[in-house]
Amino acid sequence: MVSACKLALTAAASLLTLTAAQTFQRLGGCPTLGCVLPPDQTDFLAGQYFDIRLEVHAPVNGSEANGGIPDPNFTFTIEKVGGAAQPAASYFKIAEPALERWNFTWYEDLFAQDKKTPSVVRVTSKAYRRVALYEPGEYVATLNYYNGTKTVANWVVRALHQQKKAKNVILFIGDGMTTNMITAARLIAHKSINGKYQSTMQLDKFPVLGHQMTHSLDSYITDSANSASALYSGHKSTVNAMGVYVDSSPDAFDDPKVETIVEILTRIWGSAIGVVSTAFIADATPIALTGHTRQRAHYGPLIDQALHGITNYTWTKFSGPDVFFGAGAEQFIPGSGSYQNKNYYTEFANAGYSVSLNKTSLLKASNTTKALGIFCTSNLPVWLDRNVYTGYLNTTTNDPSGNKKPALDLPGLKEMTLKAIDILHARGGDKGFFMMSEAASIDKQMHSLDYDRALGDLLELDDTVNATIEKLKALGELNNTLIIVTADHGHGFDVFGSADTTYLSSQSDDRSKRNAIGVYQSAGLSQYTVTNASISYNTGVNFPVNWDPRYTLAQGVGAMPDHRENYKVHKSGPRLPATNVTGFPSDDYFVNPKDNTDGFIVNGTLPTYEAQGVHSLTDVPVFAMGPCQELFGGVYGNIDIFFNIANCLGLAQPTNATGTANSTSTAPASQFTGAASGISVERKLWVGLVVLQMAIGWVAVNM
Amino acid sequence: MVSACKLALTAAASLLTLTAAQTFQRLGGCPTLGCVLPPDQTDFLAGQYFDIRLEVHAPVNGSEANGGIPDPNFTFTIEKVGGAAQPAASYFKIAEPALERWNFTWYEDLFAQDKKTPSVVRVTSKAYRRVALYEPGEYVATLNYYNGTKTVANWVVRALHQQKKAKNVILFIGDGMTTNMITAARLIAHKSINGKYQSTMQLDKFPVLGHQMTHSLDSYITDSANSASALYSGHKSTVNAMGVYVDSSPDAFDDPKVETIVEILTRIWGSAIGVVSTAFIADATPIALTGHTRQRAHYGPLIDQALHGITNYTWTKFSGPDVFFGAGAEQFIPGSGSYQNKNYYTEFANAGYSVSLNKTSLLKASNTTKALGIFCTSNLPVWLDRNVYTGYLNTTTNDPSGNKKPALDLPGLKEMTLKAIDILHARGGDKGFFMMSEAASIDKQMHSLDYDRALGDLLELDDTVNATIEKLKALGELNNTLIIVTADHGHGFDVFGSADTTYLSSQSDDRSKRNAIGVYQSAGLSQYTVTNASISYNTGVNFPVNWDPRYTLAQGVGAMPDHRENYKVHKSGPRLPATNVTGFPSDDYFVNPKDNTDGFIVNGTLPTYEAQGVHSLTDVPVFAMGPCQELFGGVYGNIDIFFNIANCLGLAQPTNATGTANSTSTAPASQFTGAASGISVERKLWVGLVVLQMAIGWVAVNM
Repeated sequence: MVSACKLALTAAASLLTLTAAQTFQRLGGCPTLGCVLPPDQTDFLAGQYFDIRLEVHAPVNGSEANGGIPDPNFTFTIEKVGGAAQPAASYFKIAEPALERWNFTWYEDLFAQDKKTPSVVRVTSKAYRRVALYEPGEYVATLNYYNGTKTVANWVVRALHQQKKAKNVILFIGDGMTTNMITAARLIAHKSINGKYQSTMQLDKFPVLGHQMTHSLDSYITDSANSASALYSGHKSTVNAMGVYVDSSPDAFDDPKVETIVEILTRIWGSAIGVVSTAFIADATPIALTGHTRQRAHYGPLIDQALHGITNYTWTKFSGPDVFFGAGAEQFIPGSGSYQNKNYYTEFANAGYSVSLNKTSLLKASNTTKALGIFCTSNLPVWLDRNVYTGYLNTTTNDPSGNKKPALDLPGLKEMTLKAIDILHARGGDKGFFMMSEAASIDKQMHSLDYDRALGDLLELDDTVNATIEKLKALGELNNTLIIVTADHGHGFDVFGSADTTYLSSQSDDRSKRNAIGVYQSAGLSQYTVTNASISYNTGVNFPVNWDPRYTLAQGVGAMPDHRENYKVHKSGPRLPATNVTGFPSDDYFVNPKDNTDGFIVNGTLPTYEAQGVHSLTDVPVFAMGPCQELFGGVYGNIDIFFNIANCLGLAQPTNATGTANSTSTAPASQFTGAASGISVERKLWVGLVVLQMAIGWVAVNM
Repeated sequence: MVSACKLALTAAASLLTLTAAQTFQRLGGCPTLGCVLPPDQTDFLAGQYFDIRLEVHAPVNGSEANGGIPDPNFTFTIEKVGGAAQPAASYFKIAEPALERWNFTWYEDLFAQDKKTPSVVRVTSKAYRRVALYEPGEYVATLNYYNGTKTVANWVVRALHQQKKAKNVILFIGDGMTTNMITAARLIAHKSINGKYQSTMQLDKFPVLGHQMTHSLDSYITDSANSASALYSGHKSTVNAMGVYVDSSPDAFDDPKVETIVEILTRIWGSAIGVVSTAFIADATPIALTGHTRQRAHYGPLIDQALHGITNYTWTKFSGPDVFFGAGAEQFIPGSGSYQNKNYYTEFANAGYSVSLNKTSLLKASNTTKALGIFCTSNLPVWLDRNVYTGYLNTTTNDPSGNKKPALDLPGLKEMTLKAIDILHARGGDKGFFMMSEAASIDKQMHSLDYDRALGDLLELDDTVNATIEKLKALGELNNTLIIVTADHGHGFDVFGSADTTYLSSQSDDRSKRNAIGVYQSAGLSQYTVTNASISYNTGVNFPVNWDPRYTLAQGVGAMPDHRENYKVHKSGPRLPATNVTGFPSDDYFVNPKDNTDGFIVNGTLPTYEAQGVHSLTDVPVFAMGPCQELFGGVYGNIDIFFNIANCLGLAQPTNATGTANSTSTAPASQFTGAASGISVERKLWVGLVVLQMAIGWVAVNM
């Protein structure tokens, strides 16, 4: 909305009214009828490949209706500030792309949706593929359409270093991890005496702390796809998108791409690449390192992109990461979950990968061979289930072979990460490595209000960071390695007191049960750190010694479905706070009648079609140590993490030395277009698919 | 609890059971039957004055019952590690204090409270007054009681600098301000285009960022009294206490004291002292700079302490701050709210202060005279009421004269702070100054779930910090001044989407109304920064241009009373979310029937006797710039802020050059004991007193 005033001075007043209807948007990043993607205010790394998409919209009906005939004669120029504006094809020395046309519909607001009165928009479009800007400075990209209307995009190519200051970069992402959660995790795992902690978290010991803003391009709340993309490419995008700006075309694989850190680093320095996650590996945070689509739910094609790179357009060559460890066997077992029904275990093996399907095999895998490790279907069972309440594991059917037996020989984040370092160190050699290691279920368990499981996985992350530092010391690589620990977004979680679970359970009505909550002085001290002689988990010094004390944390979120709270740990497996009382497609979630039966009901603050909690706005912490650590203090945007890493790795290419970027772009091939058409992009439907596909645990739409 | 295992190896197993009953505590900081205050794990500034309180407890009944005869023959020794243990009186070269005796009662848990079966404890005690440890290093203080039982307190005197590196220190406290709130405030006040902010907050520009842990000594949730005390003295304490460790004696003014930054700085360097707050000036955050009591609600006596220092014991001489600006005329107008019914306007005037009761007078006040400014009763009306929805001001009866007319000539935090700097700069001269400036109503308005008013006051703080930097530049003092902006604790607040207020209001049932909430991509962009031609507040570039858009922030907390949400700004004055449906003394709060009548009900997560939201656990941010800024990066405890400031100001006195600390301590006088006995320390009653006293706005018990 805000850019409307600046960009489209000629726009009619009615436009401003329309674009103010924010909860629905005609096209994010395009508040006027002429769209330039990348949009106004975009920053680039010098030499970073990207596509340009232009669209001219002609609304047929609705508040913007202009006759419904989109301009086929629009023009587009690029000007480096101080130089002359040139037609883009000429500027980039590529052929003028062909004109494309399509239609799409959208709702202007909730009233229109209730009345089922969509607005129809006709579109003319062009796409300039795989271009780059090399010289640092300011650029002006101008779309001229409708005989005199302009959309102006001001772009900046940042002036960064070409010198490589860090040999290795390890980026830990605690998905959904906020400062509030770190504080709670510290409280349950580390003993304090009279207010002084006797030990602290590894994160607490980092020398540099920053905050990053996580908002999306076109919404102030993000999901893990587009926030990961911002961290990996320096470009914010739209919810559910990764490695692309979102266009309005039917194909989810033709949206304008931006090159990621993995692609650039492979191209410039040839470093080893590692991807580790406790999620299914096609999930947004791991797969956005290599993925380019506006629909994160296209899991099968995204796994193919991870192995083969982009194949429907000429793009940076990529032939798979050196390490690819996680879960989500559904995309590897041949069948409906895998791309073109192929066996991706075989595809990876054929590409030279060792393939590990359990922890024993993982630990024995060669350190000099590329390595695939897929340890179960869906997400990896969480730390609490793998280490404390292990009975749940036997109830699962998540063997990565697809034989519907439980996967019991499971690594955790620490085992995967340490093995990954061995391989990356061996394979990267003097060229170093880049690894992203994700603690995914902090977010996933916060979504389902399972605070214990979320905090357990946060502590597993901290323990992993601790072990990583020790490992790097042993390898003599600590001083060569930039370590960053951050999140991609938050949840509005906090601890507000203690709950006397015995008293709560003994009371007969909801209001009396609430009196079991102790606040301020009655919160008392953490009992999770008080040894109980009858309990021993052998989980080490960085974890609670009692997960089930009488006095637990009273905690929660501000955004939730209807649910019931008793503040006790869930011992028989992950929590399901709300269930669908009407069923697909008219979702209506209410308290799960089997959850916390002795608790009190808290009615929700979210739309009743939401099964879970949702992401929040808050800035998230960034912990940094190693070369370039000083770049990560203070407050900045998530894209600055990409630029800081790129700066530290010397990835800027301020001249077009190779000339490859200016070669003629290729025409779209059908590979992913075909794949995409096989999966509906309609939201409700792919939620259904995801839920069907992931037999175990909860998979939210936006995680 | 946790210290029980370490300290009292001889304690019986039954003790562990008792002390595990955390929501009630026999005495915080004393998990065993022998109490040493300051307790185990205490850190000291070299030369900082403090009192020692020893107690031996003899429970008459309850799970700890030991016959009910407290040991009158306990002994106490001090040992510098490496030296010999000496009797404390001999170590400090003071007379052995007299034995004291009293009884107290407490409840072991909620069941005991419901059954009204208190446990009775008999006590023997001694207090060593105004002692100090000078030599940096480790000390062991040992209480021997019950013929062989020991309580050991390990103390550390930190090795710090004596050199003064900063001439001035300004400590801004955003009461209750979290990172989540800063993110929300940025979103409503600063325009962004395609995800790039076109301007940011002053806090975002600080070079150094840290996190401080805010937990109490004996509870993981703090209030503003004991967290302020930790920031000002380096000693954590108990909820409702400031400048003391909490003992179990009846007198709220005989608890063992610790010297504050204001007292130490006055004693060592004679710098000018400024206290500025938007709260009533006897409120915890401002008054803890000079106050020593375990009961923050003793407002009248605390104002007397601010002016005259401690008068019931020999203590650091203090004759009032140079600047004392805020609200809370109740303690100045002669009557039930003032100490000994005296006129404290007159008391301050007689002590040489200029007295300003409105903004006009404030701005004209002499810069070379000590200055008192009290601008209304209760708290200062918030920024939103003073600048946007000003109609509310006319409904108030808060004139500081007590004439029950509205106070309309009001300064804000910025005017008070800038005037304070003028005075402190003039009066401090070469000796420099220390100022604490508090944005109090971030917390107060979060308590009442009035998010707009809370964020408005957060933006006022940011605007004030910005203006302060400009002011210091103009005075040539910026490079001499350490500026810290932090909070004392948090609230579990976050933004999770947007609300279409038009749609919400149009729906007829609570569940349909919730569908007005847009999450993820449907959150959209901030409309608070979109100019509406019909609205102009003239509030400047650091504030929203529209506080009442159709699409507002969907936001909230995890801990709340029953209330109703419509996510609209409250235009007719501060929000009252819940009202007492049974009335004192059996409080039972339910949805205020007059609040947000078109909204949906959210039932609470707090005890039903809580009228408001409560504080939360989260670490809070610390922003630092100026001399010693490098000390404030990373993660640390709130007490480290005191030690870092002391280090930067060279306040450590590692030798007893003056010898004053070792003089014989004086006997307790009756001054504050008498005052205290006039105000019940029973919680419910003083809540009632506070509510009666503060006619306007909401005053929570713990704020």
